[in-house]
Amino acid sequence: MTAELADDLLSEGLQRVQREIDDAFDAILDVPDDPRARLVEAMRYATIGGGKRVRPLLLVAVAEMYGVARPSAIRAGCAIEALHAYSLVHDDLPCMDDDERRHGKPTLHLAFDDATAVLAGDSLHALAFELLSDTQTSADPFVRAELVRCLAVASGSNGMAGGQMMDIIAETSQFDLHMITRLQQLKTGALLGAAVEMGAILGHVAQEGRTHLRAYARDIGLAFQIADDLLDHEGDEQKAGKALRKDEGQGKATFVSLMGAEKAREQAFALSDQAIARLAQHGKEADLLRALARFVVERDR
Amino acid sequence: MTAELADDLLSEGLQRVQREIDDAFDAILDVPDDPRARLVEAMRYATIGGGKRVRPLLLVAVAEMYGVARPSAIRAGCAIEALHAYSLVHDDLPCMDDDERRHGKPTLHLAFDDATAVLAGDSLHALAFELLSDTQTSADPFVRAELVRCLAVASGSNGMAGGQMMDIIAETSQFDLHMITRLQQLKTGALLGAAVEMGAILGHVAQEGRTHLRAYARDIGLAFQIADDLLDHEGDEQKAGKALRKDEGQGKATFVSLMGAEKAREQAFALSDQAIARLAQHGKEADLLRALARFVVERDR
Repeated sequence: MTAELADDLLSEGLQRVQREIDDAFDAILDVPDDPRARLVEAMRYATIGGGKRVRPLLLVAVAEMYGVARPSAIRAGCAIEALHAYSLVHDDLPCMDDDERRHGKPTLHLAFDDATAVLAGDSLHALAFELLSDTQTSADPFVRAELVRCLAVASGSNGMAGGQMMDIIAETSQFDLHMITRLQQLKTGALLGAAVEMGAILGHVAQEGRTHLRAYARDIGLAFQIADDLLDHEGDEQKAGKALRKDEGQGKATFVSLMGAEKAREQAFALSDQAIARLAQHGKEADLLRALARFVVERDR
Repeated sequence: MTAELADDLLSEGLQRVQREIDDAFDAILDVPDDPRARLVEAMRYATIGGGKRVRPLLLVAVAEMYGVARPSAIRAGCAIEALHAYSLVHDDLPCMDDDERRHGKPTLHLAFDDATAVLAGDSLHALAFELLSDTQTSADPFVRAELVRCLAVASGSNGMAGGQMMDIIAETSQFDLHMITRLQQLKTGALLGAAVEMGAILGHVAQEGRTHLRAYARDIGLAFQIADDLLDHEGDEQKAGKALRKDEGQGKATFVSLMGAEKAREQAFALSDQAIARLAQHGKEADLLRALARFVVERDR
């Protein structure tokens, strides 16, 4: 696959998934004609028209490799995106990271208010599991239960929320490279890993058959976060749609502060190569995953 | 069943469930040897040794009627209690109800901090679904998926979180009895209803066979909330373990402010009687549910 073909495949894939996820959220989040309207409006604000949709694309790309019907994969993609969106809404709260911009617009607690942001996050968290346990996602109850299990573990204290707790503690203590790696594996890696696993679960791939996919996800998860630190260090706030260089200002350890920008970039590309190598057993049906492994380190936002 | 026997049955039932739920949380929430320790300590603070455990008791009582193994019911009981605990932690936050005491001790954000409270709530929310999707709760994937579906719907914008949004809006607009009833059905009723449904799901009772149980849950849910308003109006803060008379201070509509205390009390008891009448098809295996229907209106905390 040439670099150009990979770019086309990826931008086509991303655009298609972005459109499908937006349409699905628009249908799912029907605004009720009562005082809950404000809550559902806030949920729409957090989910429709924002974000790169990397997690749903990962999920859909793996699902397609195993012949999963597109609507099932998109619905599971909405679940993981709802979970990701909830985590950003809560993370942006004044008592957390206190951020003002997200996806190029005011954060939810500024556009609405703090209480609505807490509740909208909570409701999106519940929505993720409501979607996964629905027969529209899969007619097979085993698949539904496994999807829930996978996402719940990735979300809780042994996953994303645990990583966020470590992130808070990292502000006041000096983490070394080992601890930063662990932090990021939980904070970002767990959910990217879940996206890949959920695609495989929908495709009825047994645990043993998912080992290389898990390794792929681990590699791109780490590469993604190193690239994020590089973007935070060197990126353009306009393009990123959010404030940058906050970690540096706080003197918080990142991959870049611990390894230096050059070494970090090398490491990110090495991980991307390694991720691609994990897919050796697959033919061109894995080309989108290969393109994604490139994208996570080459993106500019 | 005499009133005395009912009291014995209930206090025995509650004590047993309280002990079992505490023990189960103690085993589930193992404190890790890394910076996530603070998060898991906070989750333990919110779940162990506090609360009446009405929801797990409801779930266990229904499950026992249908011969469900006790450990399964207790695990599902932990899930619903984790969900209830998460909702209290978030509800107590400064940007929400800003409460200082809960279960007779400082609220979680005061004992820890606001960020930890947000994350501990989020982690307990995820834990609920992790527990339900686990084979230890049920070997039957259909049961696991249905349990998740039931609890997720009761938690989100069409359940508890939706009710809390209405509750916030009620502070600045005058709700009538119809709207207050709707608010409470969502805020409190949805989760009590889920407790009953989840017991029936574990017992493999089909949708059609659960109609009377749903009606029972709806009745006691409303009775529970009217009793709560009465306690808020007349109760003892020491016994309640939390601040009372906040709604009155804010001029917020409640069942008591709209109906008067006497009429509200009559209504609560009528609903309790009606709930008991819903169980006519059951023999003494439903005695605990009958005692519970009494308890929700007669409790002093």
